[in-house]
Amino acid sequence: MEGKGISRAVIERLPRYYRYLGELLEEGVERISSGELSRRMRVTASQIRQDLNNFGGFGQQGYGYNVKYLYDEIGKILGIDRQHNLIIIGSGNLGQAIANYANFERRGFIVKGMFDVNPKLIGKVVRGVEIMGVENLEDFIVENDVQIAALTIPKTKAPEIADRLVAAGIKAIWNFAHIDLDVPDDVVVENVHLSESLMRLSYRVCSMQDQKAGEIKRTQK
Amino acid sequence: MEGKGISRAVIERLPRYYRYLGELLEEGVERISSGELSRRMRVTASQIRQDLNNFGGFGQQGYGYNVKYLYDEIGKILGIDRQHNLIIIGSGNLGQAIANYANFERRGFIVKGMFDVNPKLIGKVVRGVEIMGVENLEDFIVENDVQIAALTIPKTKAPEIADRLVAAGIKAIWNFAHIDLDVPDDVVVENVHLSESLMRLSYRVCSMQDQKAGEIKRTQK
Repeated sequence: MEGKGISRAVIERLPRYYRYLGELLEEGVERISSGELSRRMRVTASQIRQDLNNFGGFGQQGYGYNVKYLYDEIGKILGIDRQHNLIIIGSGNLGQAIANYANFERRGFIVKGMFDVNPKLIGKVVRGVEIMGVENLEDFIVENDVQIAALTIPKTKAPEIADRLVAAGIKAIWNFAHIDLDVPDDVVVENVHLSESLMRLSYRVCSMQDQKAGEIKRTQK
Repeated sequence: MEGKGISRAVIERLPRYYRYLGELLEEGVERISSGELSRRMRVTASQIRQDLNNFGGFGQQGYGYNVKYLYDEIGKILGIDRQHNLIIIGSGNLGQAIANYANFERRGFIVKGMFDVNPKLIGKVVRGVEIMGVENLEDFIVENDVQIAALTIPKTKAPEIADRLVAAGIKAIWNFAHIDLDVPDDVVVENVHLSESLMRLSYRVCSMQDQKAGEIKRTQK
């Protein structure tokens, strides 16, 4: 029943806690107070206490949080204590970047296969994994107990491949294609839409510039 | 005054509207009702009306929204009507994936330079841009009026490079390094933390499995 009843907002913040706790572990820190964690993470200590109280019994007054215990418990809630078999569909630069990211493996995400339609890429080996054509995608998913597919292909090809993944029993799609996928309710889609991220950045830069221009105008009055 | 007083939640949703409106334009659709847009985007028509009313006067009862006008206005609010000069620091797979993404250029994000410390990458040309060493980063930023830096380097190197970028007058960092950057308030940081996205996906897959296991248990009782 882990993670039950925890609000979505808290869940969204857990990976960041996990990252900071991991860094503390690397530094050999065994205990940390909410005040010290607050300074590091730049969120209020009361927010930290509120968030971490969701898991019950982690913190003790005047004693602080047990870093390793908290790290492990959050890892369990995020499901990082289990192994997740992953395939990457689209083995261009972005797909290869994901395959090369060793940290994913450390967290239980094992790249079982890479796929592409480009004959120049098929047969190439990335971090010990050979890039295959998509013909036998379905068999590969079943035989290798693959749960997650990273989709790093153009948006025009994404819906067709998503349908094949779903039919083959995939549990989740990590979608980098710039399109909203149409999948059944029990298939998880996590979108990474880079161009939307870049637009949000652009908006914030422009707001900042407009704000500064406004301040200058007011000063000159 | 564009975009002033619009809530952050609405701003977060604008890039998605922009994407759908762009697709409608490509299909030659000139007008669309909130009902039809609602079906396409899978959000309620009342949410759409609420969001788009922020800009005033776009929609007319029984007449629908003017797609081109709305597309252009949202583009202005997001600052996509202006040119943004961009550099990419870290020219491995991820940096090259960004450089190769032609859509960014269409939206006014021009890759002016690429940088790396790896001698094997320096001198290589990606989409007409030659990868340089980081020695003259500051001069390059000033000479090319660069506003945005995409940071696709390991987290251990990111803080030092971020300091140099800020000192050289960069306005925004599109940060792919898995670390929170410490920059002045007037520098925008937009984070893309892929491993956090993967953990959220993992959490959702595990919740889904636990939920199904629970249902099976209840059925068997």
